[in-house]
Amino acid sequence: MNIVLLDPRQTQAETWTISSKRQVEHLHKHLAAKVGDTLKVGVRGASRYLTEIVDISEHTILLRPIQEEPVPAKLPVTLIVALPRPKVLRRLIMDAVTLGVEKLILIHSYRVDKSYWQSPFLQQIDHYITLGLEQAGDTIAPQIELYKRFKPFVEDVLPSFITPQNPAYVAHPYTEQKMPFAIDHSCTVIIGPEGGFIPYEVDLLIKNGCQAVSLGNRILRTETAIPYVLGRLFSTS
Amino acid sequence: MNIVLLDPRQTQAETWTISSKRQVEHLHKHLAAKVGDTLKVGVRGASRYLTEIVDISEHTILLRPIQEEPVPAKLPVTLIVALPRPKVLRRLIMDAVTLGVEKLILIHSYRVDKSYWQSPFLQQIDHYITLGLEQAGDTIAPQIELYKRFKPFVEDVLPSFITPQNPAYVAHPYTEQKMPFAIDHSCTVIIGPEGGFIPYEVDLLIKNGCQAVSLGNRILRTETAIPYVLGRLFSTS
Repeated sequence: MNIVLLDPRQTQAETWTISSKRQVEHLHKHLAAKVGDTLKVGVRGASRYLTEIVDISEHTILLRPIQEEPVPAKLPVTLIVALPRPKVLRRLIMDAVTLGVEKLILIHSYRVDKSYWQSPFLQQIDHYITLGLEQAGDTIAPQIELYKRFKPFVEDVLPSFITPQNPAYVAHPYTEQKMPFAIDHSCTVIIGPEGGFIPYEVDLLIKNGCQAVSLGNRILRTETAIPYVLGRLFSTS
Repeated sequence: MNIVLLDPRQTQAETWTISSKRQVEHLHKHLAAKVGDTLKVGVRGASRYLTEIVDISEHTILLRPIQEEPVPAKLPVTLIVALPRPKVLRRLIMDAVTLGVEKLILIHSYRVDKSYWQSPFLQQIDHYITLGLEQAGDTIAPQIELYKRFKPFVEDVLPSFITPQNPAYVAHPYTEQKMPFAIDHSCTVIIGPEGGFIPYEVDLLIKNGCQAVSLGNRILRTETAIPYVLGRLFSTS
């Protein structure tokens, strides 16, 4: 937690209030927060501030904003990922948010276990977004969309955001063309499930405007591939 | 598991034997392996082969090698990481191995909880290396070294492998110089603990030949920073 993320409603008065059990406990336990300390605070969907703690109790911490601070820029990327198993989903969302992905789309695919769509983790996406924003020091949640059917998504939705200025790259081990690096434009990145997309899916993605690109000879797990690919694509940022 | 990693002793006879419970169960459960199937197999510390299953039972699978296959190249990097908490260590080792790190060094640092050095996870490093190699399709374990004292390591060990051709970059949020990208030489990368190195440590690293470089305005977790940095540094590979 590198900032404390507050709801705009908590920052209406002159003095702001942290009352979430998770946040208050973290500040007591890991930072040993006390009156007079400065604290970085983000207002969800708005700005970031340096604040000062003006009052502290077991369950509540009161703050006064001192000055506004810059919110880190997002990466100009739409990340499309085949829904992973629930434990991986949690980390994947936190990582994508921390790295600054603008838009995250979770899709079905042949090798995605259908039970994953019933996972209670899907109800907690907003919580993982908060944790990712607090890690990164960001205040703006990425857009998140879910598509439970592969073909309608690839045929009807995906083509609408592929343009020459915003190409779509699907990571695929068995292709000659390499994933680009140090790009200076926005793009869409598509990462398959454990075991990969099946050939029919790769073909349908290519038919609908995606470029299949390789990450080299090593097969990475989804959660490893995402930061690796983003570091590679946006290395000039 | 993208290859099955065997000990050289399991591949001495004409027919090779998979007898590890973990591997046999995986092949039964996830691949529904049967006689006549081909299987990718790595011999630890040696080559990789395409093999054919010639006999299968509940506890044993017998193989015959068909042809040798290339082992993926390593990244020319020494990765030095402040020892993370045990759960993170597991993933960190698997990721570093999967990504092809040549040498991994775990060090102490002011913000590393001393109890981490007593973790039973440290006894299982070899198991996580195996999992990482099986994920990547690699057969060669990276070198792993542990240093329980920060200052002697930085002053006496680290300088011996910093040269103009092999610079050392320490990831540090509060510096102007950016982490390089698309490099064409080997390097050493140093990643601090949760909460970062303390100023004394950063100063000592710089005094002993390291360059402090920034990854941008977002604070990444150790386990997210590693693939992100490696994707950025070695993007031409």
